[in-house]
Amino acid sequence: MKALEDKILAEGKVYEGNILKVGSFLNHQVDTHFLMEMGDEIARLFKDSGVTKIVTIEASGIAMAVAAAYKMGIPFVFAKKHKTNNISGEVYSSIIHSFTHDTEYTIVISREFISKDDRILIVDDFLANGCAVNGIIDIINQAGAKVVGVSAAIEKAFQNGGDNLRNTGIKVESLAVIESMDNGTIIFRK
Amino acid sequence: MKALEDKILAEGKVYEGNILKVGSFLNHQVDTHFLMEMGDEIARLFKDSGVTKIVTIEASGIAMAVAAAYKMGIPFVFAKKHKTNNISGEVYSSIIHSFTHDTEYTIVISREFISKDDRILIVDDFLANGCAVNGIIDIINQAGAKVVGVSAAIEKAFQNGGDNLRNTGIKVESLAVIESMDNGTIIFRK
Repeated sequence: MKALEDKILAEGKVYEGNILKVGSFLNHQVDTHFLMEMGDEIARLFKDSGVTKIVTIEASGIAMAVAAAYKMGIPFVFAKKHKTNNISGEVYSSIIHSFTHDTEYTIVISREFISKDDRILIVDDFLANGCAVNGIIDIINQAGAKVVGVSAAIEKAFQNGGDNLRNTGIKVESLAVIESMDNGTIIFRK
Repeated sequence: MKALEDKILAEGKVYEGNILKVGSFLNHQVDTHFLMEMGDEIARLFKDSGVTKIVTIEASGIAMAVAAAYKMGIPFVFAKKHKTNNISGEVYSSIIHSFTHDTEYTIVISREFISKDDRILIVDDFLANGCAVNGIIDIINQAGAKVVGVSAAIEKAFQNGGDNLRNTGIKVESLAVIESMDNGTIIFRK
């Protein structure tokens, strides 16, 4: 998505450790008009996939999920990062290792919100090593539902999560795919 | 908002300790069509307030903030619940006590995303004792910006946060105001 690449070049900031900060429009402050354009693009990319529900993880995936789900006319569910007393009854859960924060955390989704008939699109703001997505896939498999694809706003291809998923046969459509950002120079995949 | 009251009565579940679970449409699974209707209502309620930006707190306020900000044609910012290495530079911060989880946590917002010229509407899914909102107001005051109002989807009036804010002169417009839910019976404010 050319408009997203342009916005990353204009507003993104690259920091040591391959960190890309896009808090001006994507995951701290959110440009809602542009967000909905990204939702349109995800809806277009998966219009023939029979998606019944979008799943994301709190917190920074939620805005993307709102936009994509609204544009597709379906609900979304966000996995919560630990069990709170605000989640009722039985949940599906999976453990995720965060390289960003060097911690492990558990994500949970109430069993009532994923059924075996669901065809699920996973949406997030970033796709890097794919650990978060794999945790969601684990939960979707527990529910007996089908993963029909993965869509992130920004994929860091050099961390291989996206290509690993593609190699398992999953349709992965990231709106901007960064091949490298060595020395602060962002190179997008052609 | 009658449609929200109806949805709470149809789908909400009341648990001991005055807990209302609305995870089927508001804060775990999200009904995106209905979410945008709530966004329309917030935009209508604050159309004359000159709002330049919406502020909320991750995670469950984000969906409401997307809807309201999109319908008002403005960006939103979500406060993060602890300082991560994904937030650059200087931040405003405030400490919030959570009665739900009986913990304290710090919220942060990058200084670059609130300016003294901003007229800010605070949006959240729930307004109960008002601690979270007061933390955001603290940050907005630090930035020298103006709080023009507060809008929550669901206000638990018996926890007094909303009325305490109204008593300080702040415009508070909750889409559904629950006076009581004793014995599991939900009574809305007239």
